Parts: sequence; C-alpha cells; structure tokens
Amino acid sequence: MLTLHYAPNTCALASHIALEDAGATYNLRRIDFGKAQQQSTDYLRINPKARVPTLVTERGVLTETPAILAFIAQSFPRAGLAPLEDPFAFAEVQSFNSYLCATVHVAHAHRMRGYRWADEPSSFADMQRKVPKSVTAGFELIEHDLLKGPWVMGETYSIADPYLFTLAQWLEADGVDLSRLPRVIAHRARMAERASVRKAIAQETTA
Amino acid sequence: MLTLHYAPNTCALASHIALEDAGATYNLRRIDFGKAQQQSTDYLRINPKARVPTLVTERGVLTETPAILAFIAQSFPRAGLAPLEDPFAFAEVQSFNSYLCATVHVAHAHRMRGYRWADEPSSFADMQRKVPKSVTAGFELIEHDLLKGPWVMGETYSIADPYLFTLAQWLEADGVDLSRLPRVIAHRARMAERASVRKAIAQETTA
Repeated sequence: MLTLHYAPNTCALASHIALEDAGATYNLRRIDFGKAQQQSTDYLRINPKARVPTLVTERGVLTETPAILAFIAQSFPRAGLAPLEDPFAFAEVQSFNSYLCATVHVAHAHRMRGYRWADEPSSFADMQRKVPKSVTAGFELIEHDLLKGPWVMGETYSIADPYLFTLAQWLEADGVDLSRLPRVIAHRARMAERASVRKAIAQETTA
Repeated sequence: MLTLHYAPNTCALASHIALEDAGATYNLRRIDFGKAQQQSTDYLRINPKARVPTLVTERGVLTETPAILAFIAQSFPRAGLAPLEDPFAFAEVQSFNSYLCATVHVAHAHRMRGYRWADEPSSFADMQRKVPKSVTAGFELIEHDLLKGPWVMGETYSIADPYLFTLAQWLEADGVDLSRLPRVIAHRARMAERASVRKAIAQETTA
C-alpha cells in the first residue's frame, strides 16, 4: 500500500492528482506545517529533508516530485501517464518536470522561503520583490515554448500536467499578470474540470 | 548522432561523463560563457533557457540534467547505468538526481547567480555568505543519508554518480569544510580514477 504525506497548498498536490489519475489505492497523511510537523522526530525519520511530498511504498520511501511522478507512471503503466517505451518522449516529460522543480518552484520559493539562501530581512524583501518577475519568466517559457496544448505534451495527458497545474495554483499569490499566460491559464481551467483533480483537491481541503 | 552543448566547470560535465560511460558516439560543442555565447541568437534557437547542458538528438533537443541522464541510461541499456526495469530503484536514482538539481545546485548557484532571485548588491553579498552553510547542509544529507557507497546507489554504478561527482567539484569554491564529508570526498576520488571521467575532463579542458 502507498501512503502519500502531503500538506495543503504545496507541490504534493501533483503527486496526489497523479495517484488519482493512476487509479492507485493509497493512504493520505496530512503533515501540519502550521505545527511544524515536518520537523517532528517521527516525520524526519521518514523524510530527513523535512519537506513534502513523501511517498511511502512497500519497498521504502521516495521523495522529490519528479521522481515520484515517474514512479507512479511506471508502477501503473495501464494508466498511460508517460511514454514509458520511448526514451526521447519520456525525457521530454522529465525535462519539463525538472524545469518546474528546479527553476519555477525555486523562483516561487523565494517569496516565503528566502531564509534557505540568505539571512537578512532586507534580502528577503528584495527576493519577494523579484518573485513576480522571475516566476513570470519561468511561466512565459512554458507559455511560448514548452506547453504544446491541449496538454503539456500535446494530445496525450501525462504526469507533466498535474505538476504544471499545481505550480499554476500559485500564480496570483506570486503577483503574476495572468493576461500574459493565456495558454497556461486555459490549461489550468482544463485541469480543474478533471475528476481526479477535483477529488484530490477536495480530499486536501476537507481532511 | 548526439551533440552535447557544454561549458567547462558547469553541470554539463555530468551528462558528458554519462555519454562516455554509455559508450555513446557524440559530438561536443563548447559554449563560451565568457563571450555570453549562451545568449546568442543561434544558441537560443536551440535552447531558449540560455543554459547548458543541451543534448541535440535526431528526435529533437533535450535540456535539464536529470532528464538527459535518464535518457542516456534508457538509450544505452547495455551500459547498465540505471535500474530501468525496477520502478522503485529507478525512482531512487531519480530522487537523488532531482535533489542535486533542485536543492544542491540551487544552493550553489546563489554564490554567482544571485541576480536570478534578487536585485540588490547587499542581497548578493548576503547570499554569498550563506552558500557555505546551505551547500554543506545539502551535502551532509548526502553524506549521512543518501550515499550508500561505494557508489551512490550501493554496489552498482549509475547515472547518479557522475552527477554527484560534478557538483562535488565545486565544494572548495563554495567554502565547504571537506572534513565534514569524508564519504563524499572518497566518492569523488573514486570517480576521478575512472577512464570515462578522465576522458570527459580532458576533452573539456583542452577543447
């Protein structure tokens, strides 16, 4: 049995949606960031990074969204969530997810997590002022170069879609002008209509 | 034919070593950061991110180190560079690479690339002061929790090894106390003796 450790409004939503898309049977365990539960001894024993998502499997623990998403796609091949038999097409999916993880999410993180990379309040304020610009730049590359449409990889839905949807949840709070991203916003709306997305969000907001 | 676009002393070395490990036939194309060649019209047409590495394949262009490394492993399965038939073991490799990409490399990047996330010289100085601590923290998790030894994943060499080796090249410049990382340093020395690593480094330094 799989257990996904998540917190609401985090990138864990991407893995949660993918589990739903895969038709997986899984448990959900909410980590309360308000109570710093990710820093608790019990949680650090599972995930010493003190982050979410964490996917506990019968074989052991997995962390990092791109790895968890590919694991879900490979573990539930009948769901068709990634082009598993085509190394180039699979690499395109992974390249997109890596860009979200290491560039777009990192740009966003400078709004609230500046203490990871600096110490002074003036630096945090400077970082926060830059977030609308850096996050916009990340999403404009997606808008113009990466998002094929209607899904990220074109006609076929994949594990890239819930990840893009998840980070696009933060656009307003990051101060991004949505009018510059019509295709990203249309993708977000398309995703929001899917049963898997509705169910995952409902579980996270009512749990 | 594959063509790897690289610059010396960048994370492109990981993909370069993996191509050697795979026994691939490939071309190398050096991008001169000193002349801002990554910002040239010709290069931006290939990779609008203006970064390295870029791997040009017969099917199209791939970017992002974790995606390129998995692509190499999948394209040259006889080299045995990843546990391709075991979704959990493959996810462990990918999780490690994603951590290097999105946490360790990002921490390092705050030493020289602070302009990505802030605008003020005082913020850049603050970020630079924090790099020894943030990079050390990233590597200490590897030292104590992730690096199984002798290779990252244990007895079997994988695409996680050249990536760790590549980022470990920067430890001294990042101000990290090497005495805190004996296992990482032993891994670095073990890697430096491999023919694939020697050849890749020689090609990058003499090209």
